[in-house]
Amino acid sequence: MADTIFTKIINGDIPCHRVYEDDKVLAFLDIGPLSPGHTLVIPKEPAETIDQLSDDAAAAVGRVLPRIARAVMSVTGAAGCNVLQNNGSIAHQEVQHVHFHVIPKSSPSDGLGIGWKSMELSGDVGAKLAEQIRAAL
Amino acid sequence: MADTIFTKIINGDIPCHRVYEDDKVLAFLDIGPLSPGHTLVIPKEPAETIDQLSDDAAAAVGRVLPRIARAVMSVTGAAGCNVLQNNGSIAHQEVQHVHFHVIPKSSPSDGLGIGWKSMELSGDVGAKLAEQIRAAL
Repeated sequence: MADTIFTKIINGDIPCHRVYEDDKVLAFLDIGPLSPGHTLVIPKEPAETIDQLSDDAAAAVGRVLPRIARAVMSVTGAAGCNVLQNNGSIAHQEVQHVHFHVIPKSSPSDGLGIGWKSMELSGDVGAKLAEQIRAAL
Repeated sequence: MADTIFTKIINGDIPCHRVYEDDKVLAFLDIGPLSPGHTLVIPKEPAETIDQLSDDAAAAVGRVLPRIARAVMSVTGAAGCNVLQNNGSIAHQEVQHVHFHVIPKSSPSDGLGIGWKSMELSGDVGAKLAEQIRAAL
């Protein structure tokens, strides 16, 4: 994949407000936060979207999410938080390198806005769809 | 924590459209999907929110996200997807057991709606906040 601004941050070519780093993961503050403490957690492995990320890199990112969410909520005093990871420009991805947003939520009006227009899944459709997804794993 | 509907699903006491299962993780179709293929990925370990989840359970969930996203997108033909994990009722959490939504996005009008009112992070505030979060890790 092409280098992104996150490649430069990982390489130390441009600065960030670093929160956490290990050999596979880097976390730093989003400079356009939705709420104070909004943190990005990224794999060092280059991958545009989560479906292209290796299992090991995804596990390494998953492993640090509890610690980072705990620290961010502790410092900000937020009552909740959303973890969001967008894939594809249609899904609001802005930098083409996998990143997990950890977004504190202190009030209904701050943080991530969520639009939730749910449908109903019929038993027949669900059974067939689950079978197809299992076969594609 | 108290048992939830997900406890019953993990224990097999109520059915689900299972997509994936291993010793630490279960994935199944959301019965109130935001788009076809909307899948929930949950740790078997009981934890209400991600900050309460063990590192190992979080790593196990992270590890399967690429595979599940890949299969869901392949079967649905979606151009993108959002991975969302909500913590706290203020942050739209509806079942009090950690779950990651994998939500395919095929068109701007289907799937997850995202409200994004970003602010600007000043250098001074960012430096101080990152230092506080690092200290709280």
